[in-house]
Amino acid sequence: MSNTNKTKIPWEPRPEGSKDIMWRYSKNPIIGRYSIPTSNSIFNSAVVPFKDGFAGVFRCDNKAVQMNIFAGFSKDAINWEINHEPIEMKAGNTEMIESDYKYDPRVTWIEDRYWITWCNGYHGPTIGIAYTFDFKEFFQCENAFLPFNRNGVLFPEKINGKYAMLSRPSDNGHTPFGDIYISYSPDMKYWGEHRCVMKVSPFEDSAWQCTKIGAGSVPIRTKDGWLMFYHGVINTCNGFRYSMGVALLDLEDPSKVLYRSKPYLLAPAETYEMQGDVPNVVFPCAAIKDDEGHIAVYYGAADTSVGVAFCQQDELIEWLKNNSL
Amino acid sequence: MSNTNKTKIPWEPRPEGSKDIMWRYSKNPIIGRYSIPTSNSIFNSAVVPFKDGFAGVFRCDNKAVQMNIFAGFSKDAINWEINHEPIEMKAGNTEMIESDYKYDPRVTWIEDRYWITWCNGYHGPTIGIAYTFDFKEFFQCENAFLPFNRNGVLFPEKINGKYAMLSRPSDNGHTPFGDIYISYSPDMKYWGEHRCVMKVSPFEDSAWQCTKIGAGSVPIRTKDGWLMFYHGVINTCNGFRYSMGVALLDLEDPSKVLYRSKPYLLAPAETYEMQGDVPNVVFPCAAIKDDEGHIAVYYGAADTSVGVAFCQQDELIEWLKNNSL
Amino acid sequence: MSNTNKTKIPWEPRPEGSKDIMWRYSKNPIIGRYSIPTSNSIFNSAVVPFKDGFAGVFRCDNKAVQMNIFAGFSKDAINWEINHEPIEMKAGNTEMIESDYKYDPRVTWIEDRYWITWCNGYHGPTIGIAYTFDFKEFFQCENAFLPFNRNGVLFPEKINGKYAMLSRPSDNGHTPFGDIYISYSPDMKYWGEHRCVMKVSPFEDSAWQCTKIGAGSVPIRTKDGWLMFYHGVINTCNGFRYSMGVALLDLEDPSKVLYRSKPYLLAPAETYEMQGDVPNVVFPCAAIKDDEGHIAVYYGAADTSVGVAFCQQDELIEWLKNNSL
Amino acid sequence: MSNTNKTKIPWEPRPEGSKDIMWRYSKNPIIGRYSIPTSNSIFNSAVVPFKDGFAGVFRCDNKAVQMNIFAGFSKDAINWEINHEPIEMKAGNTEMIESDYKYDPRVTWIEDRYWITWCNGYHGPTIGIAYTFDFKEFFQCENAFLPFNRNGVLFPEKINGKYAMLSRPSDNGHTPFGDIYISYSPDMKYWGEHRCVMKVSPFEDSAWQCTKIGAGSVPIRTKDGWLMFYHGVINTCNGFRYSMGVALLDLEDPSKVLYRSKPYLLAPAETYEMQGDVPNVVFPCAAIKDDEGHIAVYYGAADTSVGVAFCQQDELIEWLKNNSL
Amino acid sequence: MSNTNKTKIPWEPRPEGSKDIMWRYSKNPIIGRYSIPTSNSIFNSAVVPFKDGFAGVFRCDNKAVQMNIFAGFSKDAINWEINHEPIEMKAGNTEMIESDYKYDPRVTWIEDRYWITWCNGYHGPTIGIAYTFDFKEFFQCENAFLPFNRNGVLFPEKINGKYAMLSRPSDNGHTPFGDIYISYSPDMKYWGEHRCVMKVSPFEDSAWQCTKIGAGSVPIRTKDGWLMFYHGVINTCNGFRYSMGVALLDLEDPSKVLYRSKPYLLAPAETYEMQGDVPNVVFPCAAIKDDEGHIAVYYGAADTSVGVAFCQQDELIEWLKNNSL
Amino acid sequence: MSNTNKTKIPWEPRPEGSKDIMWRYSKNPIIGRYSIPTSNSIFNSAVVPFKDGFAGVFRCDNKAVQMNIFAGFSKDAINWEINHEPIEMKAGNTEMIESDYKYDPRVTWIEDRYWITWCNGYHGPTIGIAYTFDFKEFFQCENAFLPFNRNGVLFPEKINGKYAMLSRPSDNGHTPFGDIYISYSPDMKYWGEHRCVMKVSPFEDSAWQCTKIGAGSVPIRTKDGWLMFYHGVINTCNGFRYSMGVALLDLEDPSKVLYRSKPYLLAPAETYEMQGDVPNVVFPCAAIKDDEGHIAVYYGAADTSVGVAFCQQDELIEWLKNNSL
Repeated sequence: MSNTNKTKIPWEPRPEGSKDIMWRYSKNPIIGRYSIPTSNSIFNSAVVPFKDGFAGVFRCDNKAVQMNIFAGFSKDAINWEINHEPIEMKAGNTEMIESDYKYDPRVTWIEDRYWITWCNGYHGPTIGIAYTFDFKEFFQCENAFLPFNRNGVLFPEKINGKYAMLSRPSDNGHTPFGDIYISYSPDMKYWGEHRCVMKVSPFEDSAWQCTKIGAGSVPIRTKDGWLMFYHGVINTCNGFRYSMGVALLDLEDPSKVLYRSKPYLLAPAETYEMQGDVPNVVFPCAAIKDDEGHIAVYYGAADTSVGVAFCQQDELIEWLKNNSL
Repeated sequence: MSNTNKTKIPWEPRPEGSKDIMWRYSKNPIIGRYSIPTSNSIFNSAVVPFKDGFAGVFRCDNKAVQMNIFAGFSKDAINWEINHEPIEMKAGNTEMIESDYKYDPRVTWIEDRYWITWCNGYHGPTIGIAYTFDFKEFFQCENAFLPFNRNGVLFPEKINGKYAMLSRPSDNGHTPFGDIYISYSPDMKYWGEHRCVMKVSPFEDSAWQCTKIGAGSVPIRTKDGWLMFYHGVINTCNGFRYSMGVALLDLEDPSKVLYRSKPYLLAPAETYEMQGDVPNVVFPCAAIKDDEGHIAVYYGAADTSVGVAFCQQDELIEWLKNNSL
Repeated sequence: MSNTNKTKIPWEPRPEGSKDIMWRYSKNPIIGRYSIPTSNSIFNSAVVPFKDGFAGVFRCDNKAVQMNIFAGFSKDAINWEINHEPIEMKAGNTEMIESDYKYDPRVTWIEDRYWITWCNGYHGPTIGIAYTFDFKEFFQCENAFLPFNRNGVLFPEKINGKYAMLSRPSDNGHTPFGDIYISYSPDMKYWGEHRCVMKVSPFEDSAWQCTKIGAGSVPIRTKDGWLMFYHGVINTCNGFRYSMGVALLDLEDPSKVLYRSKPYLLAPAETYEMQGDVPNVVFPCAAIKDDEGHIAVYYGAADTSVGVAFCQQDELIEWLKNNSL
Repeated sequence: MSNTNKTKIPWEPRPEGSKDIMWRYSKNPIIGRYSIPTSNSIFNSAVVPFKDGFAGVFRCDNKAVQMNIFAGFSKDAINWEINHEPIEMKAGNTEMIESDYKYDPRVTWIEDRYWITWCNGYHGPTIGIAYTFDFKEFFQCENAFLPFNRNGVLFPEKINGKYAMLSRPSDNGHTPFGDIYISYSPDMKYWGEHRCVMKVSPFEDSAWQCTKIGAGSVPIRTKDGWLMFYHGVINTCNGFRYSMGVALLDLEDPSKVLYRSKPYLLAPAETYEMQGDVPNVVFPCAAIKDDEGHIAVYYGAADTSVGVAFCQQDELIEWLKNNSL
Repeated sequence: MSNTNKTKIPWEPRPEGSKDIMWRYSKNPIIGRYSIPTSNSIFNSAVVPFKDGFAGVFRCDNKAVQMNIFAGFSKDAINWEINHEPIEMKAGNTEMIESDYKYDPRVTWIEDRYWITWCNGYHGPTIGIAYTFDFKEFFQCENAFLPFNRNGVLFPEKINGKYAMLSRPSDNGHTPFGDIYISYSPDMKYWGEHRCVMKVSPFEDSAWQCTKIGAGSVPIRTKDGWLMFYHGVINTCNGFRYSMGVALLDLEDPSKVLYRSKPYLLAPAETYEMQGDVPNVVFPCAAIKDDEGHIAVYYGAADTSVGVAFCQQDELIEWLKNNSL
Repeated sequence: MSNTNKTKIPWEPRPEGSKDIMWRYSKNPIIGRYSIPTSNSIFNSAVVPFKDGFAGVFRCDNKAVQMNIFAGFSKDAINWEINHEPIEMKAGNTEMIESDYKYDPRVTWIEDRYWITWCNGYHGPTIGIAYTFDFKEFFQCENAFLPFNRNGVLFPEKINGKYAMLSRPSDNGHTPFGDIYISYSPDMKYWGEHRCVMKVSPFEDSAWQCTKIGAGSVPIRTKDGWLMFYHGVINTCNGFRYSMGVALLDLEDPSKVLYRSKPYLLAPAETYEMQGDVPNVVFPCAAIKDDEGHIAVYYGAADTSVGVAFCQQDELIEWLKNNSL
């Protein structure tokens, strides 16, 4: 079981006349801000193949603007039933499962279970970890790191015998900097071997990713490397603008960046991306793929709703090799 | 005469299918940005029952973006005739009626006249006070406080024999903090007995009101307490977002908060609230009520236009008691 | 040859019912963000009469959000063919033609050739200068000034025997201040006689231009003085808002401001101006005029696309004299 | 009883060779940082003639760096016995005598008792008021103003039948701005008639007072006006530098500044003023005077200790008239 | 072998007349800024008993103000021979021993070797770890954490079978916040079980430690708990002021704070602490103890030199219990 | 006539035991803060050989902390007679000699006269230029550049037929950045050919000059290149610290840096450098040299007084070549 699905993932061919490498689903956003009764907004969420359909973990801020994560289910990965109650955690590898808030989840299958990571409030943001077998019971583990951290994303398999996680060390506010690091763990409890993977680009070379970058989707194993969608941020005079790029990391040593997109793949240009609680945000949190190389990327739009975009793996990788920073 | 009107206030029933406690007027915004010839924007304005209809004091920024307040009149409180010239003040209880600018008015009837408060420019923002009997002649009084202050809102009757005013001490810029205080005056000239009423909430508990809060509408006397709509602000990475909440204050000692909404009542979600001179602002300045407990709240939208939203008093209070911070 | 054209410039009469001095082209934006294959956005661009039609220099940020300038051509000044490759510079009066980036071009004819100025990246933003005879070959000259500077705009003829340039000294970020200065040069290589021309206005007098101002279009010679469209900025709690004003400078000594608009001429109010990569921006970079006094102003909208607005010179000047700061 | 003393105030003649209008006591600092067992620092304190000697209220921060005020007594106003326990307040004209901290006291006799003002912590800094008859029992009254305020200084007599207080509206941090205002009260409970008295000077004219200013000593009645020592602040690249100036305010309407020193009177130049918990601070809080026109000014040095400086009233006023801003 | 020495540690009795719990060595600073030829400053350094004397690791910034750590040796722990070349690291439990800079070392003996921690430059500050057997050869291990972190301090023995380290998560500049956390490791390579230990105090309660706090010395095992000296910071209007406090942590679970000093133990008051490259800094990095309970604390003074202060363990603990926050 | 003097410049040999390349004059500071009646501080000043002695231009801030420059004269370049009145400027190559303030002068002889540059207040800081033949009459010329600029330093002869000036583009406050540029002029009126000369160093390589750098003394022609003393700044948590370095620039093209000191030459370490109006400042503004290669450097100390330091040219250049960044 993995991010690649035998079953039918959402798909639309590239719109006529378009030469874009990535294109939006025509019925975006697929999940609106008020899709469950208590929600103020639903965005920055993750989905995985599950049984004969799909499961997901969704960031639903409620109308007190408290941030929490909710399980959801879907047959087609477009139409979702999201639980009305947030995920309740049981003790996993620790009794210390404090959590002031939870947001920006990612999900992946590793070996025998689904692992969820998210931004966990423990005296500030850090990376929370939990596992589930069924998306009903969830078991929270030790936080991976000290505060302050965000955008923790696990690899979907062990690398050299260890769990591997990307993350973006942060500060305790609207962090105006941010690079992507990798860390390893023998046991999902103790983490080390921290390496810098990717840093922001010089303004002159690729300004959309010059302020901060963070891992987005769980990396997809390809013969060319780990394929990962990430977000990049530029600090305009009217605030941060979040766009999406893609990178290929070395299969054996993913701290080595093989290719990294110089142009963005997708940037805020539709009203639902440019208007909302935080305007001008495209924020990928998951990607699923079928056997034909179709990829559907799930992204938060304007911190308000969830959109989907498509690309074709081979095309994407070729483009990436030709457009690398 | 009071905020409660025998005559017909604007009203629309809750839209079908909605479970919201507060809902928008279907023809919002009721006052557009260019509704008088000189205006750049009309917003954050206050209305009261007046004679057989309604009067109001409107913030109309002109095309030099100078801020001033204008009188207006309406039969139905929806369609407004706003004067093309700003209110000209005469001396009230002082000759010192300097005013670099005037904005964000509130209006209420107390005993024998209408009182207007607003943010008055006197070496920075402070609280201006004036009275009128007829919305033609206005008499400006001493500023209530030293700079810097905003969102001064009078109670519609004396409390323990004194005038009472809510306000939000500020700084001289885009204040990134702000709590609600109450002060008392025997004579509308000298103010004291300052007490803290409500502070911003912890981010974890109710983030929409974690950066600053300010009184909105003139409180409405109910058997359960003073019912007051207020604004709360969260500082997102792309700027301030203003939403509306509601509180009940003790009738005898309004520095005691009986209930205060943990979820917001109304947050920016319509294009006219999310797009404009200052995106993502819902800013209540007045509420009128009829004998059936219908309440119409007037709010500024995106610092650009005026909207109306409705709720039913009994429902609201019950909801508030069940959703208190 | 000059900014005044014998041939037909774009024109639409004032919309019925409108009393505005300046009005938008009904089919705005005339150039969309993706009008060339590589572009993320096209905005803040300049046009001039050229041969039997028009030529222009366009700011096209690519999808890596690298900023560069591109030549383009049009018969009607509305429908543009923009080159897919940026302008490649040859050495003009210097071999030192380094340029980390180029943005916000202006263009004017002086004596025997077209001169282009832009914001040139040389250890930070400063004013780049180049000339062309044909919009095919371009010759880059010495930067006019030390960093940090933006919005360099040449007068369309020598003044007292010298080239004259307006500019706005800046810092190396999202400069929160900015006034307009004039400098002179005998030879387009050495610059001096720097004079302050216009400063930001007091907040109380004209808030839309209280944070920073910068020259927009190449000044148009009129019998009343040099007519120049400029931008003004107000710092709202949700970021900078850019509007357009107009000034008349003394013909002999353009450091003397004869009139300067207290109200803005055009401020962000259409969706394409309020929504985009940088919301709430109206940024004029060029103005062309015909023999009947019709003026078409070209402006960047929301750092995303190009719009056109119209006014009538006589009307405008009369209005300006009556609405001067 | 008043700030003018029949008895002997501290005095040293101007040092030989000096032409300074104000000169330091040769044995400064008169009170060291550890003068009571718990103190970390003793500074910014006020003294008055009392019985056959002097009493004072002293800011002693303890070694937890909690700020509080302590009574003290002296025969000669140089050698002080400061109580080891802070002043304990009883209810004066209110039961609400909350105080998170107390600092920077001033003291004056009005009519029948001594009044103390200080910066009182009530949800941020504001002006606390208390009275005493004997410096043993102290009675705390209503805070004069809403937060945020500092440097509240009473006039030593009623003006036009009302109590009058200078203060400096502030923000909730290390306020980078600050002007002096006056407010009036009929009863020491309700305050109004707020007027701006003195603002910071333009940098070019008098830079030592260009960032913020605040009232220092209780004004001394002279035939030429109210004589008041105040502090002015310049923001250097290495922090705030506090110096001392002097002003004469109109006797009838003290919101009118008759003269105000352009040069400072005393600026940090001795090691005990340049080195300490906050380097480069000279902060006057009291001035006493004898019948010969000798004036002794008490000032905090480097937020660490207390110094005294001398001047001769006639000389001072003449100098002030010749050196006014 | 441990921080407790059978041999003679530096010691001076409390000065006559003093009631201080901690007092300075009379010949401070013991190490001046230019004590090795290349140094600009020597401060924030750590010492341990070694063989029949003492060894230390010293922060010596050179005259290019590059930060590095140097070994040194002493017979009496007062007079030091510091190597003229910085420590050269060999690979310990990793080949990745990158280090842009090294500063603020701590040293302790655990089981069979000496462990050094310091602030290590790896894409920003994080915690470096190394071991040595002889202070000649040093073996650098994996960084404990992701950036950004400072003030990593090991416990001198395993706790519940794991290595334990205190640290202070930071940002990438002059961090204006900071609390103390504990983390555990089975192997000095992977770290987890992160717990918050101590946070800054409320300003009203103990202002000297209200901005940030960080572990100082390696904790000393006592029957009452782990005794640890730490630094606390207050942000004055003229910069950070660093003082020293002390805490007792639970022996079994050191994330539990048993006692923590409300007053500081030592704050900048001598010229060598108030004047230097960073004025007003007292920064403890080591403490050694003899069998009589004498404790000598080593601290950096003004980021310029090294001082020593003394206390008596029993007295200290009793005082701490009586003066706990 | 030049910076090299046949007559006796101040000189002291290196103190015994010292290995420093630069050492201080034993009687520093040579000019105290109160050396003229009106002065608050005298610092950042420049001297040149003049007639049979020396002349200088001195920055004397008066007690209103207004900044101005004053002429002075000396036989021995140690004991100075500074005029009590500031320099009064006559019109040089322009009538526009506005000046809100003048500070940080430099002086050099070129061809037939002495040229003075300084930081001139014209709508913010820029570079003022004047000439004198006799230090009695001074003729002010056009400002070299637009605001904002500081530290303009002329070369003592034309280079390739043009005047050459170093400067440091700035912003309008306590600029937190700053690199050294060169510009050329044919006539001291129009300036161009701006080139970047030296940028701040990476923090890891040489932190004392990682925040900003600025030219100090007028460059001295040597066979190895233009020898120039400059200042470098590090931003500590308690403010800026200014130190002195030295560079050699190419004789033909001084935009080429041949050598640049990695360690500083002199950094604040004496009380008069660490304590004063702005602590921790060493700021060179002039250097004079005799035929034996003795060099005396004049520097401002703590923005308060003037110090002198010595070095030997040959030694210095050799050291520089061995210690270059």
